[in-house]
Amino acid sequence: MELNSYIEHTNLENIVAEKDIQKLCKEAEKYHFPSICVHPIYVAYAKELLEESNIQISTVIGYPFGMNTKEVKVYEAIDAITNGADEIEMSINISMLKNKEYDYIKEEIEEVRDAIDGKILKIIIDITQLKEEEIIKITEICNNTFIHFIEISSNSKQEDIETIMKHKNEILEVKIYGNIKTEKQIEKFINMGISKIGTTNSIKIMEGEAK
Amino acid sequence: MELNSYIEHTNLENIVAEKDIQKLCKEAEKYHFPSICVHPIYVAYAKELLEESNIQISTVIGYPFGMNTKEVKVYEAIDAITNGADEIEMSINISMLKNKEYDYIKEEIEEVRDAIDGKILKIIIDITQLKEEEIIKITEICNNTFIHFIEISSNSKQEDIETIMKHKNEILEVKIYGNIKTEKQIEKFINMGISKIGTTNSIKIMEGEAK
Repeated sequence: MELNSYIEHTNLENIVAEKDIQKLCKEAEKYHFPSICVHPIYVAYAKELLEESNIQISTVIGYPFGMNTKEVKVYEAIDAITNGADEIEMSINISMLKNKEYDYIKEEIEEVRDAIDGKILKIIIDITQLKEEEIIKITEICNNTFIHFIEISSNSKQEDIETIMKHKNEILEVKIYGNIKTEKQIEKFINMGISKIGTTNSIKIMEGEAK
Repeated sequence: MELNSYIEHTNLENIVAEKDIQKLCKEAEKYHFPSICVHPIYVAYAKELLEESNIQISTVIGYPFGMNTKEVKVYEAIDAITNGADEIEMSINISMLKNKEYDYIKEEIEEVRDAIDGKILKIIIDITQLKEEEIIKITEICNNTFIHFIEISSNSKQEDIETIMKHKNEILEVKIYGNIKTEKQIEKFINMGISKIGTTNSIKIMEGEAK
């Protein structure tokens, strides 16, 4: 298993300096991570640093609450793409999902998807706050909108991840983000069908692996 | 002391339904709170409910990390005003402040301020993450941009609040947000010069007062 190929090397810390982005990009190059994830404010800078590489730049939209209007999410996504983002991770409006406003959720996803025309779209949803029927519903919406990823917390219950795996179509992939520290954890997730791991602990994990 | 006149009745919960906004608005009317604060997605609905009242509607921009681009913050502020917001609370880009990009911070504030033309602008900054010199710097930037409020956490140290009070001009007011539960806490803040309190516990506080 080429562990590195699963990792999205991430810095979504509260306080980030340009030197932290330099470090992130250098590490991504060194360990051949396929992508990095940074706050929107650092997309243009990361793009500059990675101009010569084929490392993809991902960023977050409406993060973390997703309680912005659709118009703002669309604008933020376009702004990020304009600044050089290759992939967009959008926090879904969980209130609207809880309120059973499924058409709203579908429209929100479709509008952002259409605005970024072909770039990878990941939908961030904290399924630890959802009931089984809601997890099935959001998975179906992701299926029906033909997006690339549903993105869930590393705190998600195994049974809830299995619910997604059972109901997702072949296009939809699952990304795990959060407090992931060991190769063992990653292996467990990969065995469950997860295809991308977003973590800030990538280097520790890789160096643990190298030992 | 008319306690209610200090309170911004707030619901920035993760999961909010229309009925929660109805409740918030009814409570604001009943207790004569001068303003409410809701997520951007609920501004238009709150506006509809409060059409006949003079309760001001505040909302949050770039919340909570503030790591969006200036362009996105400006767009989100205009979108909120268009939807009926009377007041804008913008999370400052704390990374840029930490990186001593003071001109950037000033421009960010000025661009949002100018975009909302005359509406009240509050700058959210978690001063618990700042050194004294940084607190002085952001207070001076708020002074120089003639905005209405600097907004800080209820976890802020007393000495840090005093630093703001010492350096702020006469226009700049200070709002406290967070885990505020008792009249006593509010009185302490008011005695320190705080002029607005953002809390979700408004009703408990008011009912405690009534006893």
